[in-house]
Order: sequence, then C-alpha cells, then structure tokens
Amino acid sequence: MSAIGIEMHDLCRKLFPICRSITGQGFRESLGLLREVVPELHVVEVPSGTRCFDWEVPKEWNIRDAYIVDPDGIKILDFKASNLHVIGYSVPVDKTISLEELQGHLYSLPDQPEAIPYVTSYYQERWGFCLSDNQRTELKDGNYQVYIDSDLKSGALTYGELILPGDSSKEVFLSTYLCHPSMANNELSGPVVTTFIAKWLKALQRRRYTYRIIVIPETIGSIVYLSKHYVELKKNMVAGFNVTCIGDDRAYSFLPSRQGNTTADQAARQVLQYLHPDYINYSFLDRGSDERQYCSPGIDLPVCSIMRSKHRAYPEYHTSLDDLNLVTPSGLFGGYDVLQKTILSLEHNEVLKATVLGEPQLGRRGLYPTLSTRDRPVDIKRMMDFLAYCDGRLSSIDVADKIDVPLYEMIGIIRDLKKAGVLKAAEL
Amino acid sequence: MSAIGIEMHDLCRKLFPICRSITGQGFRESLGLLREVVPELHVVEVPSGTRCFDWEVPKEWNIRDAYIVDPDGIKILDFKASNLHVIGYSVPVDKTISLEELQGHLYSLPDQPEAIPYVTSYYQERWGFCLSDNQRTELKDGNYQVYIDSDLKSGALTYGELILPGDSSKEVFLSTYLCHPSMANNELSGPVVTTFIAKWLKALQRRRYTYRIIVIPETIGSIVYLSKHYVELKKNMVAGFNVTCIGDDRAYSFLPSRQGNTTADQAARQVLQYLHPDYINYSFLDRGSDERQYCSPGIDLPVCSIMRSKHRAYPEYHTSLDDLNLVTPSGLFGGYDVLQKTILSLEHNEVLKATVLGEPQLGRRGLYPTLSTRDRPVDIKRMMDFLAYCDGRLSSIDVADKIDVPLYEMIGIIRDLKKAGVLKAAEL
Amino acid sequence: MSAIGIEMHDLCRKLFPICRSITGQGFRESLGLLREVVPELHVVEVPSGTRCFDWEVPKEWNIRDAYIVDPDGIKILDFKASNLHVIGYSVPVDKTISLEELQGHLYSLPDQPEAIPYVTSYYQERWGFCLSDNQRTELKDGNYQVYIDSDLKSGALTYGELILPGDSSKEVFLSTYLCHPSMANNELSGPVVTTFIAKWLKALQRRRYTYRIIVIPETIGSIVYLSKHYVELKKNMVAGFNVTCIGDDRAYSFLPSRQGNTTADQAARQVLQYLHPDYINYSFLDRGSDERQYCSPGIDLPVCSIMRSKHRAYPEYHTSLDDLNLVTPSGLFGGYDVLQKTILSLEHNEVLKATVLGEPQLGRRGLYPTLSTRDRPVDIKRMMDFLAYCDGRLSSIDVADKIDVPLYEMIGIIRDLKKAGVLKAAEL
Repeated sequence: MSAIGIEMHDLCRKLFPICRSITGQGFRESLGLLREVVPELHVVEVPSGTRCFDWEVPKEWNIRDAYIVDPDGIKILDFKASNLHVIGYSVPVDKTISLEELQGHLYSLPDQPEAIPYVTSYYQERWGFCLSDNQRTELKDGNYQVYIDSDLKSGALTYGELILPGDSSKEVFLSTYLCHPSMANNELSGPVVTTFIAKWLKALQRRRYTYRIIVIPETIGSIVYLSKHYVELKKNMVAGFNVTCIGDDRAYSFLPSRQGNTTADQAARQVLQYLHPDYINYSFLDRGSDERQYCSPGIDLPVCSIMRSKHRAYPEYHTSLDDLNLVTPSGLFGGYDVLQKTILSLEHNEVLKATVLGEPQLGRRGLYPTLSTRDRPVDIKRMMDFLAYCDGRLSSIDVADKIDVPLYEMIGIIRDLKKAGVLKAAEL
Repeated sequence: MSAIGIEMHDLCRKLFPICRSITGQGFRESLGLLREVVPELHVVEVPSGTRCFDWEVPKEWNIRDAYIVDPDGIKILDFKASNLHVIGYSVPVDKTISLEELQGHLYSLPDQPEAIPYVTSYYQERWGFCLSDNQRTELKDGNYQVYIDSDLKSGALTYGELILPGDSSKEVFLSTYLCHPSMANNELSGPVVTTFIAKWLKALQRRRYTYRIIVIPETIGSIVYLSKHYVELKKNMVAGFNVTCIGDDRAYSFLPSRQGNTTADQAARQVLQYLHPDYINYSFLDRGSDERQYCSPGIDLPVCSIMRSKHRAYPEYHTSLDDLNLVTPSGLFGGYDVLQKTILSLEHNEVLKATVLGEPQLGRRGLYPTLSTRDRPVDIKRMMDFLAYCDGRLSSIDVADKIDVPLYEMIGIIRDLKKAGVLKAAEL
Repeated sequence: MSAIGIEMHDLCRKLFPICRSITGQGFRESLGLLREVVPELHVVEVPSGTRCFDWEVPKEWNIRDAYIVDPDGIKILDFKASNLHVIGYSVPVDKTISLEELQGHLYSLPDQPEAIPYVTSYYQERWGFCLSDNQRTELKDGNYQVYIDSDLKSGALTYGELILPGDSSKEVFLSTYLCHPSMANNELSGPVVTTFIAKWLKALQRRRYTYRIIVIPETIGSIVYLSKHYVELKKNMVAGFNVTCIGDDRAYSFLPSRQGNTTADQAARQVLQYLHPDYINYSFLDRGSDERQYCSPGIDLPVCSIMRSKHRAYPEYHTSLDDLNLVTPSGLFGGYDVLQKTILSLEHNEVLKATVLGEPQLGRRGLYPTLSTRDRPVDIKRMMDFLAYCDGRLSSIDVADKIDVPLYEMIGIIRDLKKAGVLKAAEL
C-alpha cells in the first residue's frame, strides 16, 4: 500500500512547483511528467478559437515572470516564490502606480489572513496579484512597480488522452483536470491518482471494458472533449468518474451523477458504504467540477465523483494552504483504493443465474459444512445469500447491494460457484 | 400586506352576524357581500328536489326568530343574540314544555363550558337549541316556552360561480364554502380569502390558465356542482384547492388530494416548505371538507387544501369561540400569501429545455462572474442548478423541487435565461 | 383463547419425547399424533434415492438405543434420557475407546455449559454424542464403551399433506417441519399450530381459497415437495407461510419472502403491525428455514414467515433448553391468532369499487349520524376512509393499509356497505 501512496506523493511533489493554467507550457510540462508513468498517454492540441458547443477555445496564456517592487525598492509578491501570486490569465503589465490604484488589483482573504488565494480570470482580460491578508495590511503608502511578463495569444488548448482497449467496446471513463497551479488536493491529487490507476489498468492481463482516460483543463477541457466525442461517449459509456480532490486524509466523499442511480453511482456507493460507512454523501447540487458538463441536459453521462475532502468543503480549498502537507501518501492511497475497488466491481458486474431449482446441494461439492451446528461461517452465509438472489434479472452489483457485501469481495465466491456449475451468466 | 389583511378582516366582520345554512336567505345575503368585491361572481339557484348523484337538493330553510322563555319569564337563548343557539334546519316550534323534556333538545359541551356548540341536522327533521354548559347547569326546574319561527319548504340551493378565462382552457379550480353561521376560521376565512384571490386574479394582465371559482354550501354544494360539471372538471382541471380554515395565526397546514402527488399537491407543498417549513403535513385520512367529494373514487380530481389551523384541529372549532379574535388580518394574509404564490407557481409551470449542450457560456452574456474566486453568489448557484435540470422532461416545478427553491422565486431568473436564448419551452 | 392454547401445549407434550429426524419411525409416529387432530392429513412416502432437483432422498435412519459406559462402568449420555445425546444420522458403533479418541466425537457448548446442543450430520456418515459442557469437563481419563444401535438403510422420506378445497382453485399454502427431536419452539410449535389452524379451516362453512398444508422434514422435505409440485404451486399460490418458531412468549417476528412485497407479506405485516406493533421485522437475509427453497430463484413463491422468537435469535435455540417451559399455551395461542387473522384477511381480499360518484348518502341508509356535531365515531371514520379508497384498482388489503386498519377488522363494515348497495366487487 504505502509504496504506491509514496510514489503518488513523489509525483505530486514534482508537479507542485509548475505554473499551470487551462492552456500553456505549464500544462504541457505537467502532462509530460504524467507520461513518464504512463507513456501511452497521448497529447492532443486544440487550436485557439475552435468552436466547442457554446464556447470557444481561448487564447493560450504563458507567463515567465511577475513581481511588484515596493516603495522601498524591495521585490514582493514574486511569481517565482509562489505562482499563486499572479491571477491566472493576467495580461502583461509594467508600470508604476500608487498603492491606492494597486489595491484595485489585489486579492486577499481577510478571514484566512495567512493564505494566498487562488484567483483566475479566464474570459476577461485583466491583471492582478494575490497575497496573504497579513502581507496586504503591511503595505505602506507610496509608488509600486508592477511587472507581469506574460502573453496571451493564439495557440492551443492541450489535453492528454489514453484508450486502453478491453474485450468489449463498452467503456469506463475517467476524467481528471490538471489546470490548477501550486495546489495539492485541488488539484494534483486527481491527475496523479488517475495516472496510477491507468498504470494498474494497463498492467491487467485482461480488461473486460475499454478504458478511456483523459487529463484536461477543467470546464473548457470537458466542453472541448465532449464537443468532439459526446456521440461515442453516450453510445459506449458504462460508467464514468470525475477524479478530483482525492488526496487528503480527512473525509471520504461521494457526489452522484445528475441521474443519481447509474451503475457508476451504484458501484461507487457500494464500495464507499462498505469501506468507509461514514463517507459524506453529497447531492448533485453540491457539484462544482466537470460533472457540470458530463451531466448537463442532453449529455446525461453516468459520471459521478469519488473524493476525499470535496472542493469548497475544506478550509484550505483554492489557497496556498492546499499543499503537500494536506495531501499525504495515505490520503492518496485511500482514494486510489476506493477507485480501484469500484472499477473491479464494474469489471465483475454481470447478470447471473442459478443453474438449479431450489438450493444446490453444496455439501457434496465441498462448499457447505456436512455437520449442522448453530454456527455458520460468514463466507457460507455470503455465498448462500448471493446465490439466493441470482435470478437472471439482477446484476451482480444489485445482488451485492441486497446482501450488504461489495461485489469486489464476492469475486472468489462467484468463481467457485461457477466452477461448481451452480451459477452462470444469464442469457439476456 | 396588512392592507389586504385588514380589508379581508373587515369583510369577515360584515359577514359574521348573518345566519347562514346550506340553503336560504342568509347564504344569498352573504354571497351579495362577496359580490361587492367581485361583482362578476355569478349566482346560481338549484331547485329543491334536484337529483345529484346519490343525493337530492334539500328543502330550503329560513329562520326569522327563535328563543326560549324560562320559568321566570326571562327570554334566554335568543337567536338574535347568537344564531348558534338554534340547531341548523330546526323545524318551527311554539310550545311550553318541562325542563326535563327540554333537556332532550339541548346541546352543550361539558368540556368547554363557556362555548356554544355548532350543531346541525340537515337531513332529518328535528328542532333544538345550543347553549354553553355554564348556562345549562343554571336552568331551573319549571316550564319553558320554546319558540322557533322557521320554515322548511321547497326552494333552492344557492351558490356562486366565477369563470376567469385565460390563454388556455385548462383550469385552476378554487372551491370554498359559505354555509356556516357565525364562526370565523371555519368558515368565513375560506370565502373571504377566495374572494380576494379572485380580485387579484381578475386584475392580472394575462392569465395562462382559466380560473373556476365556486362559493358553495359544504358537502351538498360540491355534490351538486360535481353532478352538473364533473365531466368538464375532469377534462380541464390542472390543479384545484379547497379553501377553508385559512384565517388564524397559529399554524400552516396542508391536506393532500387522495392521489397525493398531483401538480396541485406539489405546487402547494413547495411553497409551504419554503415559506413555512414547520407546516403540518396532514394525511388524506384527516380530510373533512369538500375534498371528500372532489377526491372520491371515479371523480379523482387533483384537489388539495392549504390551511392555517385545520378543521377539528383547534379547540374553538365548531363553537362560538371561533370568532373574529381567533381570525386576524395577519392570519388571513398569511393564507392569502401562500395560496397566491402557489397559483403563481402554477402559472409558470412548464417543461423547459436548455438550448445548448454543456453549460452555456453565461459570462459573455453578463449572467456569470468573469473572475473565479471561492465565493459564488446564491442567485448564480440557483440559476446554474435550475439550468442543470432543464432536460425537456421535468416540469419547472419538478426542477424547483430538485433545487430546493420554490418556482415563484425563479420567475425572474427563468425570464433572463430565456431572454439570453439558453432556455426555451420544450416541444412535448 | 386459553382453551386452544392449552390443547396445543398438550399436543406438544405428547410429541416432545419422540426422537425425530428427517426420515424414520419417529417422524411417522409424530405425524400419527397430528392425524389424531386432523385425520385427513394424508401420509406420503418417497423412497430413498429418489432424485429431487439437485438432491436425492437420503437413506432412512432409525435408532433404538445409544449410550456410553464410563471407566467406572456407569451408563452416561443415555439416548433414552434425552435423544439429543446422539447426533442425528449417527451410524451404528459398539466399541471401547480412550477418552482422547472419544473427545473427537463429542459436542458441547462452552458458552452455555448446562445445555446439550442439537447436532446432525445428514449427508456424511459419522457418529457422535452431545452433552452439556459441565458434564464433559467431568469426564475422567480411561476407556469408554460407546454404543449406538441405529441403522441407515434404504427406506423412505415421510411427509403429511392436506388439501382443503375452496371455492377457488387458487391456493393458500402452509408449510411446517417436524424433523427435530426433543425441542419445543424449534420445532414442535410449527407443526402443532399448523395442525390447529388446519382444524379451524376444516370447520369453516365456506372457504374462498383452497388450502394446501404440508408437514415435512426441513430442507430435503421442501425440496422433495417442490420437485413434485412446483409447477402447480407456482400456478395457484396466492400466499404461503412457513410456520416455525411460533410458540414462545417473548417476541413477534416477521421474515419476508425474497420478493418482500407479495400479498402474503402484506397481509401478515398488516396484522402484526396492528396487533403487535413492536414486532421484529427481519430481512430475507435472516432466513434459515424452508423459505430458502420456496423463495429460491426460479421457484419464487410468495412464502413468508410469521414467528414468535426466530430461529437463531433466542439463546435456547438448538439446545435442550428449548423445552416446554419456553413454549407456553399463551405463546402458542399468540402465534395461532396472528396466523388465523392473516388468513381471514386473505379470505376477504378483493378489489372493491364504490357504486356511486361522490360520497353516498349514508344517512338515509342508517349508516351515518343525522346530527352533525364535533364528534365522529371511530367506526364511521373507518367506513368513510375505506370507501374513499375503493376505486376499483386497489385490493381491500391495500385499502386497509391506506387507512391503517387491518382488513380483518373491516369485514363487518364491508358486508354492511355491500348490503347497502354502495360497494361491490370490481370487474377486473
């Protein structure tokens, strides 16, 4: 366990300092680090100006340097110290202004005076700096040189895509976003856990489903991807997961698809209910990430989210405090574990049917005790309960729900029952 | 607010002294006072003996005077002091009898010794007097002259009917009853609130639905009306409300239709849940008024009740204590307000559909902030939540239920989204 | 009440000492005692080796004597003192062995040191003795003579069957098992209560349904019976009950069919909810008796269980402590009463329809008070509530559920309403 957790945390550390946005070199560089783990992750570039549903791909933003020089000639809010100091998509600026004018371009959080907030302005041209409220209150009167060396010009939106073929053309979909600068739970945990899940899936001897995994910028990325692929996604998707905020140690959280009862929802809830019964069961009204697009009317994909502490639900959210102390190896592994077991459940989900009427005589097949006493081993009870519902109508995830055991825990028992000839896949 | 509340209370005061019953001059006179507010309220007379389903219209009852003269020659239980002293539909009587014989014709409430009960005998000929139990225990032995100057003869049952046409022939139905003598919550509040709702509806520039409003005697009135109109009612009714017990200050109450989940039920519950989340949610088993007829098997109309303190659920019910201290301007206005907002919700209930796939780019339409910070205004959240469910299948009341906001609060947002071209009525 | 309770307890006492197993003379002798109450109970013999679904009828087991002689020459664990001392289906043995070897053939309960456990080994040949743990710890070193005079040879499996014809070929099914040796709640209570229910049914002047009542050995008996009759059972069964553990005074319990919402489940729950609202509502996952077969996939019969203290849910279960102190006349009668009222509800379950639109005028039919006061008798309320739901769609058990009154309490009211011509059976 901890081995994968530590590997994931190490990858977070490599990614952390890079300045990412929804477009630009930082995104490409970060994708490159993921491709060191899964080289098959394919890089796609979509030119600025491309129409995608109601939107269009914005200009590409790149930034090289930014800082302010205070009245005493001291460099403050240095982009190189923290890329959160500059609001995303800031246009270039190089001038000297009064403190009063500067204040209109500063963002801080009076309630969390030690935190630098994360602020962006994707679709309107402006510039600004973010800083802790503590630092802000110490700024003295006088003239400040503000300097941002950025550019905003026609380029491309970049994303990563990986298709792992399976026995079936039906797909399980994983989507994660990589567009946030130096923050850890939201959002390095998502792409990092997804990358290691991709590595595990790739190594499987056999996959029942095809896996489609994308690493995109949030919102505009999912809109771009949907505008190119939604017909095939709607045709093939069995279950999908938006992987985000999955690396801290506090909570487990679930956010359903809009429909709320898809196979994806059911599989994820079953695992969470069993492993972490105190998980927080959010409403779709609490959504805030790419499920906004995946579940929009007319798109209606079965996409839900397995999370640790949900976006907006932890105090460090969208500030400099969302760092690599908040996200831990065990936190990342906990999320990885739930996602992996959910996928395992999906891989084994099928409609099963008992082959005999009445209970089978399992004693002579070595699957049932020959002596009747008051005690009944838990495995025997699970086996009998599972069999009792295999009526050729319920899916095996449905049956597992009925008997309060997650399907991934029943994989061995199902194999034994099939081998004993008393259970088979139903012809539908 | 208080202006309408005071106007309604004033009308109650004018109506209060009149002796009403299910037929007779008192009912006609009361209807006349409502017609001073809404002159379009049409008066219908149905002759005694008319068959209506399993019933027939009873003889018309009129009463001019009634009293008892006690052994000391003092006039007591004077009808002119309180019309509750005579049981409804009492036949004429003029004779002298012993106290013992008199007792068999007296009705009082030992548990509420200061209250005069309200008692009627519509369908069997008898006579009787009602009095407080305090007064009864003070009656002394001796002979009493009992005098009732009433008549019970072929005449008519009277009711009021108002049809306010709308864009659609589909109807919203309001029914209220005016047959009770001097009592205020049950029942002057119902006809008075209904009359002022009619006045408001009449003044609307445009009505989507046609409104059918009737002021009837309870039970026999709804049976008469149904027997004449149930085919068209079943064909056209979108939602109906039995307006009763809607004028005191204590509780808000809801009594569902028999089906329980009609559009009428849904609209009323949504408003009550939002404005008065501690409202009392009764079962159809608690019914006791004209919904008994509107929801009877084979009639099955979508009629429910929005109330303040429900019939039988407050101690003054059906006694002289149900007076104009119990019913107040603010009590009446509270009921009026819920009913009005429920009707507004119905007027704006339609199946809506987003016009674009994915979320629309609302920023460039001025409907979404261009700067991404951690805060999200509540109106933006409501707008995005509403849009997220506009899939061409759910009604806007359904969508409002999903997002825990009553539809009447969304009217402006829906107008903005339609104007922006991102939302439209679905073609069904 | 107590008369039937005492008769049932007397029958338990006659049956208690007999050594029963899934086959053999003890079962036949016990069936004979039931036939003294209901002579029509037909005896069926199914030869050893008969195939039944995935199973076959085992050899017949009979035992005449068994004991152990301890190192001091004292006879202990004497079968004649308690037939629980020998594990069921023990093969014959007659030899002298060391205490150490003997220990491998002994069964006791360290947690309940005074109880002799009940142990069987139907489908693997072995021998063994059961004893209290107190007695076991006092066994001294030395040689023990073990003696079991039993035989296990081709014979038959015996069961009882009673068909009581009714107006309809549709059937109510009662199944109970008689294969346990000297234990009282599990399981003399089941066959004894079933026998007295059969006696009551037999005496009814008229039965709407046909009753099929079987007294079988558990598991193999229901498998044998199903393998012979499941096609007609599936075709005709309206409701079925597995009658077991129905004689103690502690709890009332309900175990649903697998489907969970059949007419049988609904009828039983309605009676229990009304008479014993604190009854324990088990899940199908808590099953453990013949419902395992009746509800198995492909069989899917509407069979549930009304119980007092459920198998496995009381400490005396499957030990010598489950005796005639635990099972009492009032305990047996309580179970009988619930089962009888459930059957009465089924007999009166039909789809009813009001004959008039609107409420009927019940006053002129003498079914409604002619004077309107604030009080409403409970019977009138039940009558009006019942009528309000008779819409030609709901069954009368459904309607009774709606109005929170069990159908068996409504039998007289339904008869009155039918006689008054306002209610009739719906043409479906």
